[in-house]
Amino acid sequence: MINVGIIGATGYVGIEIARILSAHPGFKITSAVSQSFAGKRISDVYPALNGILDLELESLSIEKICANTDFFITALPHGVSGKIIPELARRGKRIIDHSADFRYRNTGIYEKWYKAKHQMPELNELAVYGLPELYREKIKSARITANPGCYPTASILGIAPLLAEKVISTEGIIVDAASGISGAGRKTDLPYQYCEASENFKAYGIAVHRHTSEIEQEMSLLAGKEILVSFTPHLLPMKRGLLATIYAGLEGRYSTGKLLDLYKTFYRDEFFVRILKEGMFPETRYTSGSNFIDIGLAVDERLNRVVIISSIDNLGKGAASQAVQCLNIMNGLPENAGIERAGMFI
Amino acid sequence: MINVGIIGATGYVGIEIARILSAHPGFKITSAVSQSFAGKRISDVYPALNGILDLELESLSIEKICANTDFFITALPHGVSGKIIPELARRGKRIIDHSADFRYRNTGIYEKWYKAKHQMPELNELAVYGLPELYREKIKSARITANPGCYPTASILGIAPLLAEKVISTEGIIVDAASGISGAGRKTDLPYQYCEASENFKAYGIAVHRHTSEIEQEMSLLAGKEILVSFTPHLLPMKRGLLATIYAGLEGRYSTGKLLDLYKTFYRDEFFVRILKEGMFPETRYTSGSNFIDIGLAVDERLNRVVIISSIDNLGKGAASQAVQCLNIMNGLPENAGIERAGMFI
Amino acid sequence: MINVGIIGATGYVGIEIARILSAHPGFKITSAVSQSFAGKRISDVYPALNGILDLELESLSIEKICANTDFFITALPHGVSGKIIPELARRGKRIIDHSADFRYRNTGIYEKWYKAKHQMPELNELAVYGLPELYREKIKSARITANPGCYPTASILGIAPLLAEKVISTEGIIVDAASGISGAGRKTDLPYQYCEASENFKAYGIAVHRHTSEIEQEMSLLAGKEILVSFTPHLLPMKRGLLATIYAGLEGRYSTGKLLDLYKTFYRDEFFVRILKEGMFPETRYTSGSNFIDIGLAVDERLNRVVIISSIDNLGKGAASQAVQCLNIMNGLPENAGIERAGMFI
Amino acid sequence: MINVGIIGATGYVGIEIARILSAHPGFKITSAVSQSFAGKRISDVYPALNGILDLELESLSIEKICANTDFFITALPHGVSGKIIPELARRGKRIIDHSADFRYRNTGIYEKWYKAKHQMPELNELAVYGLPELYREKIKSARITANPGCYPTASILGIAPLLAEKVISTEGIIVDAASGISGAGRKTDLPYQYCEASENFKAYGIAVHRHTSEIEQEMSLLAGKEILVSFTPHLLPMKRGLLATIYAGLEGRYSTGKLLDLYKTFYRDEFFVRILKEGMFPETRYTSGSNFIDIGLAVDERLNRVVIISSIDNLGKGAASQAVQCLNIMNGLPENAGIERAGMFI
Repeated sequence: MINVGIIGATGYVGIEIARILSAHPGFKITSAVSQSFAGKRISDVYPALNGILDLELESLSIEKICANTDFFITALPHGVSGKIIPELARRGKRIIDHSADFRYRNTGIYEKWYKAKHQMPELNELAVYGLPELYREKIKSARITANPGCYPTASILGIAPLLAEKVISTEGIIVDAASGISGAGRKTDLPYQYCEASENFKAYGIAVHRHTSEIEQEMSLLAGKEILVSFTPHLLPMKRGLLATIYAGLEGRYSTGKLLDLYKTFYRDEFFVRILKEGMFPETRYTSGSNFIDIGLAVDERLNRVVIISSIDNLGKGAASQAVQCLNIMNGLPENAGIERAGMFI
Repeated sequence: MINVGIIGATGYVGIEIARILSAHPGFKITSAVSQSFAGKRISDVYPALNGILDLELESLSIEKICANTDFFITALPHGVSGKIIPELARRGKRIIDHSADFRYRNTGIYEKWYKAKHQMPELNELAVYGLPELYREKIKSARITANPGCYPTASILGIAPLLAEKVISTEGIIVDAASGISGAGRKTDLPYQYCEASENFKAYGIAVHRHTSEIEQEMSLLAGKEILVSFTPHLLPMKRGLLATIYAGLEGRYSTGKLLDLYKTFYRDEFFVRILKEGMFPETRYTSGSNFIDIGLAVDERLNRVVIISSIDNLGKGAASQAVQCLNIMNGLPENAGIERAGMFI
Repeated sequence: MINVGIIGATGYVGIEIARILSAHPGFKITSAVSQSFAGKRISDVYPALNGILDLELESLSIEKICANTDFFITALPHGVSGKIIPELARRGKRIIDHSADFRYRNTGIYEKWYKAKHQMPELNELAVYGLPELYREKIKSARITANPGCYPTASILGIAPLLAEKVISTEGIIVDAASGISGAGRKTDLPYQYCEASENFKAYGIAVHRHTSEIEQEMSLLAGKEILVSFTPHLLPMKRGLLATIYAGLEGRYSTGKLLDLYKTFYRDEFFVRILKEGMFPETRYTSGSNFIDIGLAVDERLNRVVIISSIDNLGKGAASQAVQCLNIMNGLPENAGIERAGMFI
Repeated sequence: MINVGIIGATGYVGIEIARILSAHPGFKITSAVSQSFAGKRISDVYPALNGILDLELESLSIEKICANTDFFITALPHGVSGKIIPELARRGKRIIDHSADFRYRNTGIYEKWYKAKHQMPELNELAVYGLPELYREKIKSARITANPGCYPTASILGIAPLLAEKVISTEGIIVDAASGISGAGRKTDLPYQYCEASENFKAYGIAVHRHTSEIEQEMSLLAGKEILVSFTPHLLPMKRGLLATIYAGLEGRYSTGKLLDLYKTFYRDEFFVRILKEGMFPETRYTSGSNFIDIGLAVDERLNRVVIISSIDNLGKGAASQAVQCLNIMNGLPENAGIERAGMFI
């Protein structure tokens, strides 16, 4: 068993990682850091874990947590990791980070969209964008893996084959997406209160959501040219699940079947990418609780456009289980160890 | 009190009309036709109406329902109205119909998208598209008012000012929309079962949904030229509410404030159209249970594009209360009589 | 139009009262007090009310709000009203209060269950328990009407005929009830967040919930002897609605039909109490958004026990619309003015 | 790997068993029988299983499914199993059945409550009631294991220690319980449609629900005397989860802590029974997706009564995973193999 520490263990991403690792054949959680709940057991905070994971939560002591552990997953609010990660890195630890800090090749773009000075530019060079389907080889030896955002995961994997194969126009790409409320984290803000969020649907971050820049970076790299994207996220009245509906104009004529073949080829070795049959489209419940991404598409021949639908669990492939996928890769374990199951679909 | 008959009174649209009319100062329901529940009281089928609307449901007898009533609202499955409406029309009755049968100026387009021969082409010429904000004058004297579809209502009103004022490109317009499950009607199909629809989000009718043609007809009329639209509806895990996110390229440079002013001017006399302040965007709960449509927008200056969000209640402005709005107009009543309230927003 | 002021206008109860009064034929809201949102319009806080109720919220100035208004509804957190109500009372204003402060005949019981000294014992003698079906005559001239709790409303009206007619044992009465989340108010506490409350059901306040004492007071008065009750509330994953399942042993043999007749007689003049037919039982959606209470029951002949089900909207008959019912009574208006409609049941 | 066949594989219980077994270290599904979907792959019906369980569904051929398999799980509508189980039994197969057919020691009680002649009285003698915490030893060698009902599982385990230790009165026991909608199975009946079941709560089967007799049988056996129970189930607006609130009078004086100790002792060797700390009570989300049953309780000293709360997943410990627990026991595997994980609690 390989030792792993989780820093920020009681947020929704942290606890989902803890839940997965508690049943993982290859890892052992050696420390679970939570400033809010230090001294309590994880199962006091999340009683579902009673008898399964009763580890005591601890406040942060770099020395203590580093003593017997070489891998850390940080699931912290943006900005907080700047004090912790350099300490871990200095001690030679390998890190999977959930903040946006290490997702950008160009820290200037990070600084512009996140309206903050990058705190660790020197570490940024050690970081790999943790999307295994695109960066598997680099992740294997990464010092720091920057776990992608949930919307970028669904968007980038949803469109990658079309950009790589240059069958769509790089102008006018639109990503219209919607996420379950757990994507906001374990917050007590009023908009996420049951009576405010139930029976409601809304867009947010219109034209300014920070994931836009992350999506654009990876789409541009795939296309080999700069791409700007119109991205609109929405908030769904449900806990988990994320669906992206992606619109692009075709360069040339393609049938739906032809494009699906192209996807199947592009992702032929990917366990976690499921390309749906023609006429079938993803629903969030099919990926809920799992690390799968489901993709379906249709060519609109009237408009010579394509509509791609991709679906993930925002806490799964969009966060926690993707981190475990990276952790498996970084440790040479089978990539789907501990995350090969279907989630609860009823 | 003006007499009104409802044909198809126990579907979700029919019963919502009945609920509204039961508290309306100007109308009296004289007959409520329901093939499935004839002989029962409305309040046996919907016990919430006990003591409020205990009218007996009747099977269809044209003679009987026409005896003392000149206005009818038909809320029937597609295709069924073809036998009933001609009989009503022949007797000089005025009708508000909820099917797609009378929504099209060109019955050929209807036939193509609905894959069926139009049953009443001669009556189609008497019909007016029942969107009061665009066709108020014609509705006043209409023999047949074709109540618009829910998605078209949100889409057309959401973009009308931009098309009328020619500030957007007529190419590449995208309508990405989502509706609550009541939009599917009172069906018992498996996909609408609680355990299948809760905690789930999906697109459907991708590139083939029939409302596309209705949206295109009205957008084309507004623009004075043919417009094709990429329209994707989604199914939300909630009962009521519909949100459209509309994407268009700008022709020329406009600020968000400038476009909002344009909307305010365009809709300055419209009680039911609420243009939100800059930075505010509609949420479905704000229009739930009401006849309002809320509209917000943002210019994405990076892309010189505009994103418009419009929200209605699919059973309200998207169906039942819009029918009552038309009924008010056809009868010379104040347009908001009986539908001026806010819905339940908590 | 009679002037009314609402103090605590932006909580869920306060805003529901505002929503009802905004469409009421007899009342005009002259002031809406909100410490949190003073200076904003009501419709800034609840955009559903845009164009319907755009009144500016104000901070509390007793002099100002009393200038032209004689009726006040206070919907404040427990304890806060102690400073405000004496000031209103001293000026001869009539008040409907939503706290527990004036619900008890014996302030000692209040002090024991609420673990606090009663702040206005001298005013308590002016107060009437605002359950119109039991105290209509006294409410007419009440200086202070203590609006009942939501659970007590459903429990007391649900069992009143059986206690009044002495057909059940006063020992071993059990009230098992469940409420929608809006009953907790507009709180941002973690347990009421969407991801914590959705897909979840739990009991709370087991053996210690304060409504127990309110239920016991009124049951005892009905029975003419002291009654102790076992009361367990539960939290439902929904916004509105409250259902009480009440268990009691029968004294003597009665059929279901016989007991239903007894209820129909007891409530024969009550517009808002609906006794369901034998074999029919209340569902919360039937009363949601309305001021009705629905009651059904079944005799379990095997056990010689009766099970009564009563259903209200916790924000309706359980709070806001019941306050308006009392306001109507206190002003000599028709008791159902402004609250006679069915709610949204789909 | 031990071979297992599932008959009735596409209902909610059947598919949950399939989902669990697909990740189980000890079993292999050799046949999945579904009359409705024979010829399709399981993952065509439940796309969440794509790539995980793509087994072809087959119509029933006793010969074929028996060829290489000795264990069968039947999850069929009541009545259907009467033709199948004798055939399996005749061939010496061991069976876990989900119907009520084999749950009764006295088939007369079955016949009375289920209003049907028992079809296999001679097989009933081979059957063991499949509640491992009470009948583990018998299950080990059972030919037929009758998987208990969901409400009985929560009720019986919730009260067993009190009955066994004779600390409560056997008169006046009340079980008030509520279940998620998946308990109704994969039905398309109107009451289970999203728009009818969402934002709704209701009681059903009042005084006549068939699980009453199953609860009474086991409570009586525990107490050593006949017990009659007042049982009222309710339907929750959620997919999964079942909570029972059980009321009983105490014989003698006990503190909450004392009774909790008694539970801890009674269940000291039970992995799947979790007794909560004093002041803590179960919530359905804590057991959702798992095979755990959580139990909390409080003594109401005013009334000298006890209130016990027990929570399970109706599809988990209430059906599918409890069947797998029995399957483990019948095969000598560790009792928690394949079902030791926590479910998705966010």
